[in-house]
Amino acid sequence: MKVITIGREYGSGGRTIGKMVAQKLGIPYYDRELVDEAAKRSGLAVEAIEENDQVVTRSFLYDLAIGTSYGYVNQTGIPLDLNTQVFLAQREAILKFAEQPCVIVGRCADYILRDREDLLRVFVYADKKARLDRIVKEYGEDPAKAEKLLAQSDKRRARHYEEFTDSIWGARRNYDVLLNSATLGLEHTAEIICRMAE
Amino acid sequence: MKVITIGREYGSGGRTIGKMVAQKLGIPYYDRELVDEAAKRSGLAVEAIEENDQVVTRSFLYDLAIGTSYGYVNQTGIPLDLNTQVFLAQREAILKFAEQPCVIVGRCADYILRDREDLLRVFVYADKKARLDRIVKEYGEDPAKAEKLLAQSDKRRARHYEEFTDSIWGARRNYDVLLNSATLGLEHTAEIICRMAE
Repeated sequence: MKVITIGREYGSGGRTIGKMVAQKLGIPYYDRELVDEAAKRSGLAVEAIEENDQVVTRSFLYDLAIGTSYGYVNQTGIPLDLNTQVFLAQREAILKFAEQPCVIVGRCADYILRDREDLLRVFVYADKKARLDRIVKEYGEDPAKAEKLLAQSDKRRARHYEEFTDSIWGARRNYDVLLNSATLGLEHTAEIICRMAE
Repeated sequence: MKVITIGREYGSGGRTIGKMVAQKLGIPYYDRELVDEAAKRSGLAVEAIEENDQVVTRSFLYDLAIGTSYGYVNQTGIPLDLNTQVFLAQREAILKFAEQPCVIVGRCADYILRDREDLLRVFVYADKKARLDRIVKEYGEDPAKAEKLLAQSDKRRARHYEEFTDSIWGARRNYDVLLNSATLGLEHTAEIICRMAE
């Protein structure tokens, strides 16, 4: 049994697929829980991490304002910026969770765990129409805003990934398999992942 | 049972995987055979097609020299250029082969058959090191030339695909699944495709 990481485009159903896989295989599923775990370890307030989760900001003043709760420092003892703090805290949580078979959605987990042998790195994607449908029907977003939301979310995920991994989000080289949830269907996609993990 | 198209990076083992899949499923496998079939239909010499196969050239003189064997013409009766002739002849062959379940490797088959319901569009890739190893060990190429060969071949395939499909070769949107043959292994990759096709 493997540790399964799932990267996903916004609206592709990657989260739902991840939960299905975890349930079918009887292993834990991690997503937002990682943030909480990360918060506990870093000493940062959960709200600060949630606000900054997957957002890459370089605002000096903002960093300065909550600089007092910094936990990680660089080699010369200077505290690292907030995003790096959050990333490192998430990384610790991911490493801990991955001590046992589990499903981890998002959070650059594929990159963090890339040297492990028992890892299945999945990326779930779908065409734009299917994703817009899903954002409106499943997430209850305003149809008029769905397209903008989709573009913003993808951009944010890509920037976050590229910031910390020095690689390109969704680029096939970073994964073992990429699955099109729109043409395969969510249930079938989850089944394929389960069979690959066993 | 589906028609399976396999796009693949040079040296990723896509041809071998395609043959394994066809054998496991007991369905025909097409690759170079397509060229012969295309030749028969277009009336062009096999050699001319083989020379031009997956090469996009815009040499007016070269086109002119064998212009007498042109079969396809544009809307005003003017013969189409050689590459388009070859592509259209291959397209006809692919459409005929795909009347029954089969495996078709390369040749923009995923694009040509994209509107079919019973289609599984696969792309096989691998990291550079694995591909270089394969080119040298399996294809018997000179190690000193392997890297250049790899770059040239990928570039040629990408240009050919983009020329005729107006889309990007290897871009995930064009496929149902992308599989990393270096991390999954050739046999396992073939098994996954079989299970997805059934």
